[in-house]
Amino acid sequence: MNFKNDLVNNILPFWLKDAIDYENGGIYTCLDKDGNIYGTDKSVWFQGRALWVFSKAYNCIEKNEEYLKAAKNIYKFFPKCTDTDGRMFFTVTKDGRELQKRRYYFSETFAAIGCAELYKATGDKEVLESAEKYFAVAYECFKGVRKNPPKINPENLKTKALSPVMIMLATAQVMRSVPGLYDKYNAIAKECLDEILHGGYLTERALLESVSIDGKFVDSPNGRIVNPGHSLEAAWFILAEGIVTKNDEAISAAKKIIDITLPLGIDKTHGGIIAFTDLDGKPPVQLEWDMKLWWPQCETMIALRLAYTVFKEEKYLKLYEEFKEYCEKYFVDNESGEWYGYLHYDNTVSTTLKGNIFKGPFHIPRLYIIMAMMDEFGGIVEYMG
Amino acid sequence: MNFKNDLVNNILPFWLKDAIDYENGGIYTCLDKDGNIYGTDKSVWFQGRALWVFSKAYNCIEKNEEYLKAAKNIYKFFPKCTDTDGRMFFTVTKDGRELQKRRYYFSETFAAIGCAELYKATGDKEVLESAEKYFAVAYECFKGVRKNPPKINPENLKTKALSPVMIMLATAQVMRSVPGLYDKYNAIAKECLDEILHGGYLTERALLESVSIDGKFVDSPNGRIVNPGHSLEAAWFILAEGIVTKNDEAISAAKKIIDITLPLGIDKTHGGIIAFTDLDGKPPVQLEWDMKLWWPQCETMIALRLAYTVFKEEKYLKLYEEFKEYCEKYFVDNESGEWYGYLHYDNTVSTTLKGNIFKGPFHIPRLYIIMAMMDEFGGIVEYMG
Repeated sequence: MNFKNDLVNNILPFWLKDAIDYENGGIYTCLDKDGNIYGTDKSVWFQGRALWVFSKAYNCIEKNEEYLKAAKNIYKFFPKCTDTDGRMFFTVTKDGRELQKRRYYFSETFAAIGCAELYKATGDKEVLESAEKYFAVAYECFKGVRKNPPKINPENLKTKALSPVMIMLATAQVMRSVPGLYDKYNAIAKECLDEILHGGYLTERALLESVSIDGKFVDSPNGRIVNPGHSLEAAWFILAEGIVTKNDEAISAAKKIIDITLPLGIDKTHGGIIAFTDLDGKPPVQLEWDMKLWWPQCETMIALRLAYTVFKEEKYLKLYEEFKEYCEKYFVDNESGEWYGYLHYDNTVSTTLKGNIFKGPFHIPRLYIIMAMMDEFGGIVEYMG
Repeated sequence: MNFKNDLVNNILPFWLKDAIDYENGGIYTCLDKDGNIYGTDKSVWFQGRALWVFSKAYNCIEKNEEYLKAAKNIYKFFPKCTDTDGRMFFTVTKDGRELQKRRYYFSETFAAIGCAELYKATGDKEVLESAEKYFAVAYECFKGVRKNPPKINPENLKTKALSPVMIMLATAQVMRSVPGLYDKYNAIAKECLDEILHGGYLTERALLESVSIDGKFVDSPNGRIVNPGHSLEAAWFILAEGIVTKNDEAISAAKKIIDITLPLGIDKTHGGIIAFTDLDGKPPVQLEWDMKLWWPQCETMIALRLAYTVFKEEKYLKLYEEFKEYCEKYFVDNESGEWYGYLHYDNTVSTTLKGNIFKGPFHIPRLYIIMAMMDEFGGIVEYMG
């Protein structure tokens, strides 16, 4: 992989070819192997995520006006993705009519980082206001100020999950990088980091996805589940946080997460990182548990390369090179561009689709952007800025 | 397979060993390969489904008091699975506190058939009242008298789905079999059959899972999806309906569904029925699309054997025998009993679990019960009675 070259000549062009909807605004993500649209419902997550990717590529990789044009076209679709209460939908029709609105606030966090990055490109104050507005909505949900009806009755399932606090950390990290916003969002990043490190998720055996409200291990399928790609993504968020804020505790914790997660996640027979595993070897209930999904491989590569950069241990470099080879061999589609998203347990392709409601231009271009910047600068600090 | 023998010596004992919760009432379904409980949350679907299975086995296979004891123990758990509005939950804690309540009414339909079958065993009028009460709640949801908040905004996605009408047909069929209830529930079965046959789901190419409100094909991932196991299950419901009510149109429609579905569902390379396919060869969005799940194999076997019985075409018998061999070879666990639930595309075992929230004692024992009764009586009419 030549990250910068592949990013600008393969990954981004794949999504720029037909997916940007200049008629209605926004971006389609249901693309088949060749990039043809097989479904027109739009993922709101991906409006924000794609806005971030094209803006970030414009800001940090290449001042390509096509990136900025795509970003602006996606941004103008945001009002249609937003309900009257300020919260965003989960999916909308191609022309922006509500299909599904969910209780989660991931849509809003991705919108916030997308706007933050576009603002850096254009300096448009309205875009900055949008970033802060979407972040505020997400933060109100996170803090329980806005109450969304819970999926599971909280009276009877007294647990808390890693995902919400982890996404708030990552979102605050991006918001913090906007000139003038450091102090406000640094405080929130610190709040989230503290909860991740001291909220009971990080045990001697794994970074848990779900623990009791008072931070204890719950011996249930959800309590035992490990999502290795998610753990390794969290690890590099935390490691980056440690570097940027000079926090040794965070740096040590990130190393620990990487070291305990890799043996749980790596498929020793076929290579790659599996989707889920049960910490006690009981059956994971997720049907795709032993499939190889694109994004855990991306997050593993980032975590490994960053770990090598910081800790200088050869094992990280060796494994990073192995994963790079593995992804080149099995995930990269040399015929039609971009990556496959879903491989069977044995690395054969399960479906040739390049995008759906959950796969679009995010983890893969983010990997390539970070790697291209590390190739250039040697560290992660510039990526975080 | 010796259906009656395997049912009474393998399948039912597997679920009777440790899954029946005589402490709290009800049944656990999260069982590992050996039948050990790995999760204690209870599926409300499976309270009704298991009640039906143990009652039906008692009524039609063997007057084993253990079946009746299990059935009664499950029935006494029903009040804890039922909300104050009469609707049921989707999952509850082991002691019957609400975890999740969903907008769908499958829980109520399974409770209705379970109670109907238990009533046949005991003649307890309260159980009959429960059957009619749960059916009434489901029917009110089906007819829109009870409004549940829709998942997708119905203003912008004007489609209707096969599942709700198909489950109401199957539920009405069981309710109709209770002495004294024929006329009332026969009218509902007829209403459902008419909608399935004339509502636009049955096309020349496939039985569709989702069509527009006015019964037209929708060219979207959901509109194009075929669930072959579901289609073949519908086919045998419809074929049985045709036989019981002497409706030639239903009999012809069932044959057509079987004939158009088999080529869409059969994996010509590895055997078995896949989980999903896109009618136009576009990527199915379900990750498990090419996995072999237990229940589509069961429904295929029933459809094929019934088709052979009715139409006397050798092709159905030949394929039925092939599926029986296939399931014996790959699904039946000769070490620990029962069937695996989830095989990879290549028939290797994906997970060794025997149960979860969606797999429990239903499709497999129902298959064995029907087959044992067909072995004995040669037809399906006695099963329906």
